[in-house]
Amino acid sequence: MKLASIDNNTRDGQLVVVNKELTKAVKVTEIAVTMQAAIDNWNETECKLQTVYENLNAGKITNSFDLSSVRILAPIPRAYHWADGSAYVTHVELVRKARNADLPESFWTDPLMYMGASDAFIGANDDIEIENEDWGIDFESEIAVITNDVPAGTTAEKALSHIKLITIINDVSLRNLIPNELSKQFGFYQSKPWTSFAPVVVTPDELGDFWTKGKLHLPLYSTLNGKCIGSPNAGIDMTFDFGQLIAHAAKTRSLMAGTVIGSGTVANEGSINGSSCLAEVRCLEIIKEGQAITPFMRFGDQIEIEMKDEEGNSIFGKINQKVKKYIKK
Amino acid sequence: MKLASIDNNTRDGQLVVVNKELTKAVKVTEIAVTMQAAIDNWNETECKLQTVYENLNAGKITNSFDLSSVRILAPIPRAYHWADGSAYVTHVELVRKARNADLPESFWTDPLMYMGASDAFIGANDDIEIENEDWGIDFESEIAVITNDVPAGTTAEKALSHIKLITIINDVSLRNLIPNELSKQFGFYQSKPWTSFAPVVVTPDELGDFWTKGKLHLPLYSTLNGKCIGSPNAGIDMTFDFGQLIAHAAKTRSLMAGTVIGSGTVANEGSINGSSCLAEVRCLEIIKEGQAITPFMRFGDQIEIEMKDEEGNSIFGKINQKVKKYIKK
Repeated sequence: MKLASIDNNTRDGQLVVVNKELTKAVKVTEIAVTMQAAIDNWNETECKLQTVYENLNAGKITNSFDLSSVRILAPIPRAYHWADGSAYVTHVELVRKARNADLPESFWTDPLMYMGASDAFIGANDDIEIENEDWGIDFESEIAVITNDVPAGTTAEKALSHIKLITIINDVSLRNLIPNELSKQFGFYQSKPWTSFAPVVVTPDELGDFWTKGKLHLPLYSTLNGKCIGSPNAGIDMTFDFGQLIAHAAKTRSLMAGTVIGSGTVANEGSINGSSCLAEVRCLEIIKEGQAITPFMRFGDQIEIEMKDEEGNSIFGKINQKVKKYIKK
Repeated sequence: MKLASIDNNTRDGQLVVVNKELTKAVKVTEIAVTMQAAIDNWNETECKLQTVYENLNAGKITNSFDLSSVRILAPIPRAYHWADGSAYVTHVELVRKARNADLPESFWTDPLMYMGASDAFIGANDDIEIENEDWGIDFESEIAVITNDVPAGTTAEKALSHIKLITIINDVSLRNLIPNELSKQFGFYQSKPWTSFAPVVVTPDELGDFWTKGKLHLPLYSTLNGKCIGSPNAGIDMTFDFGQLIAHAAKTRSLMAGTVIGSGTVANEGSINGSSCLAEVRCLEIIKEGQAITPFMRFGDQIEIEMKDEEGNSIFGKINQKVKKYIKK
């Protein structure tokens, strides 16, 4: 099934079930008012939501409305835990190669993961508001999953059963703030301002065989100002599957329902199908030409991120955002 | 005023107003069911909660109950944003000195801050459940504040007005997992499993002159197995006040209501009044004796953390926890 949150003038939005074609939606207040409430109680809500989904797809719901008539929020506008991995190690290797740094061997077996700010995920069509272009504004196209409660010390295999919802995200990065933050070793903070989500999250069954063993085997399209920057297949060269990422996050503590786990920038070896962020494009230029040519994003730039099924239908809806100058209040 | 959350078999607990002496409490369901709901709407709830507090202190509330008769949760059991600074740079300097590393000059002007897991803060009397003693279990006694909505780009001075609630916390750390995580530069993750909170949070006015310019000028007592490890004054040698920490966190994005900001381990120069974590005790031993003698915490160890006013009354109630072996489920 497909779920979304729509704007109802509350911080968490209103949970809706969305039809397969992403055209119709229906409120499910009697099952759960918010996405968090649904995932908090997934054992009970999943089946009920699934029934609504089937009826909506069958045209049997009378109080549905056009999805285009409402403002879409992030599916989970506020979450309690957001952990972003860097599972495509080929991407990390490339970035390091561009600055003549070796990749530690352990990076192939011990996942990189940082904790991100989850108090304000932004919607698929929300502006990316940044104060200063000089901070090096970049997109990062990723896969993300939402879990139910995960006990501490779970195995990678068991962790797979805790993946309840899947979507795509844009983990906005401020590249020029990263070197200073990483040198302090405390991780990203100011350099990771906003994360935006596709309009809908879907259950694993919705992806059929494209979702296998914690990987999503489809190309992820990133388009900047109308130009395709890349379409790497998210199922290829993912060194750590989502089960491994969740097990890493849960090694010393449990994870609560609604935890969002990200894949990191999707990348294929050799960048044969392009890139999922401008930093990678620039690294390729540095390696080939000796310097980066492609600039980071500027105010007014438009980034679109989408994943389609084999028939060309959008699975999660499109992330379609403009970068906008933030004016201090 | 003083507020707490008590166990009502929900994930977020039930908000209660607590009297000044920490003996009585009353539910305030008609004002806000949860702490998050109260802080989401602080402009409206603060005044109403304050009235209840005054009536409770005056003995005018008929449906109050003994605080000791209920199970206390963390004041905000799940939060959307948890950022922990390292504001007592003298502590950082000491830790680095013990491993013969210089302190970068920038550490005195550019705060260290990491994003922590906020999906399951634990209560003042909850066990610290850890799977493996060899991970190097340590406490960290800190001050923490909770903000309302903070706009991006706020100044340190303006940030002070966003501090609505104050308390003390124990940021449990797994010292032996830290070196590997820091070397990866992505920040702490597995090495910061649990954070526990004192029973109550208080509004700044409750602290009188002890709260000035974003610092809390009182000693913070840490007692391990009945032995006082330290009582440094939290208002002394705090290089960055809470206004500066909040401004740092809000540099590139806004912070949502209910954001928790921590001070980092409280420490005074020269550790003249002892330490707020075992890592510091061990660093002092290394510098003086050439090796660490004090072990990290073991299963069964008891850690108490408390702050008292000039009359010796507990302000936030006591953190009093035992370390317990976590058995995988």
